[in-house]
Amino acid sequence: MTEPMFNRIALIGIGLIGSSISHAVRRAGLAGEIVGSARTPATVETALKLGLISKGYSSATEAVNGADLVVLCVPVGLCGPIAKEIRDHLAPGAILTDVGSVKGAIVRDVAPHVPAGVHFVAAHPIAGTEQSGPESGFAELFDGRWCILTPEETTDEAATRKLKAFWEALGSRVEIMSPEHHDLVLAITSHLPHLIAYNIVNTAAHLERVTDSEVIKFSAGGFRDFTRIAASDPTMWRDVFLNNREAVLEMLGRFSEDLTALQRAIRFGDGETLYKTFADARAVRRSIIQAGQDTAAPNFGRTPK
Amino acid sequence: MTEPMFNRIALIGIGLIGSSISHAVRRAGLAGEIVGSARTPATVETALKLGLISKGYSSATEAVNGADLVVLCVPVGLCGPIAKEIRDHLAPGAILTDVGSVKGAIVRDVAPHVPAGVHFVAAHPIAGTEQSGPESGFAELFDGRWCILTPEETTDEAATRKLKAFWEALGSRVEIMSPEHHDLVLAITSHLPHLIAYNIVNTAAHLERVTDSEVIKFSAGGFRDFTRIAASDPTMWRDVFLNNREAVLEMLGRFSEDLTALQRAIRFGDGETLYKTFADARAVRRSIIQAGQDTAAPNFGRTPK
Repeated sequence: MTEPMFNRIALIGIGLIGSSISHAVRRAGLAGEIVGSARTPATVETALKLGLISKGYSSATEAVNGADLVVLCVPVGLCGPIAKEIRDHLAPGAILTDVGSVKGAIVRDVAPHVPAGVHFVAAHPIAGTEQSGPESGFAELFDGRWCILTPEETTDEAATRKLKAFWEALGSRVEIMSPEHHDLVLAITSHLPHLIAYNIVNTAAHLERVTDSEVIKFSAGGFRDFTRIAASDPTMWRDVFLNNREAVLEMLGRFSEDLTALQRAIRFGDGETLYKTFADARAVRRSIIQAGQDTAAPNFGRTPK
Repeated sequence: MTEPMFNRIALIGIGLIGSSISHAVRRAGLAGEIVGSARTPATVETALKLGLISKGYSSATEAVNGADLVVLCVPVGLCGPIAKEIRDHLAPGAILTDVGSVKGAIVRDVAPHVPAGVHFVAAHPIAGTEQSGPESGFAELFDGRWCILTPEETTDEAATRKLKAFWEALGSRVEIMSPEHHDLVLAITSHLPHLIAYNIVNTAAHLERVTDSEVIKFSAGGFRDFTRIAASDPTMWRDVFLNNREAVLEMLGRFSEDLTALQRAIRFGDGETLYKTFADARAVRRSIIQAGQDTAAPNFGRTPK
């Protein structure tokens, strides 16, 4: 029998990502045991019942005890405070990592609390669904998706290599970049799309001349697609925007500039500008499908053909 | 053997919607025969080969000859010119309808050309995929989706009733409203979502510090969802925006106001406003699923669980 990659993995937070890691770790046989903690007692209970963890704790300090891999699976804003809380309880040689959608702020908040001999490697799996909680996870979530690691120059290279192997064993492809570049890339590929989706749902909800029930009934014209990502966890997303302010504001500024240009084209009946903008967009969709990052089925495969 | 609902249906334009109507008409046995015309000879050829039509024409005037139902399945901007072209060829008593995403402009452009004894009832099935052309249609496209009819006060009531029965037989649910109200409702549920999707794809394509290939690779964070509707037919969408200017500009103004408020909340670290906006959005998703207008499966069912 070969040794598992880690003896004891501690999941701090057991929501969609934490529970999916547990499923994928068990699928690949990567851990001797998986333990975990959550602030809400019901979450710990559910995680134990589902077999996501073999031991459950209400405090992170207990959960990390003796773990050689500690994964912070909590909203971005909680990573710093939890790192401070667990610092004196981390096992020597352990790898500490996270799954947060922002990397600069997490490195800034967590790194100062990491004791000598513990290796902190920040990470972000680009995967998820609009659901939350320990019941929402599944082993296939990371298959074929990218996970970005953002080690610092001083990070132990062996720890980075081991975490890369870990994510690959979970089904991911791994890329390494700086926290700053990560935050810029994700601002356009994830944070701005979520902000816009939340915003249009909000706009639609506050119309006087169109009723809420009309918005619901006739949502298949496009609106429904936006409501999916707008159904994502509000706490997680609040923390993303509070912690990636500069990059999001930059992308938002560009988006608004471009939107103003389209608004002007509509106002003045400039069909050529509209056509050109719309025609270019098809190629992007094709590239995403070719890169294996979305289904080729029309309508995401929702309509039976 | 019972009589079919129509003896001869003429499809003017055989793209996604025209071909789907053909499939659904044949599934329900609603027509003695289906004929059609398209400007592009290859489209007519494909439609004949696929059995979508039994006779194919390059001109609409020939196709409408003897038809008791004529369906204009062309971009919004072509409806007026085609109505003018076919006016002297329409059979007495025929129903003339369309499938355009804008209703005010179509009623304005088509109604003046409708001869006495022909019944024009404008219609809009709220259904589609991001694909185009005669190969992209399928019988199930309209199942459970809404079709909006916008008859005028002078429209023959029997014709409206028959067209309602027709769309119900194709699998749709039918609602009747004024062209003006239709254009306002669709501006928020369909036109603005498409404009925003096209715009963010355009913004992402013109960044200097994030490469195109990074945008593609890390698109699973949310961006990929927008690329689906941004892959829709550019000619069709150009015509929508040129022909529903006022309503789209109104919705765009509100969207931008709301977005500016969120931008301000991000700039000043106002987590409470962000949380409140995001939390409200979940209810909308639930309502859409309950109304049968989208799948309850996480990630639109794209990720195998």
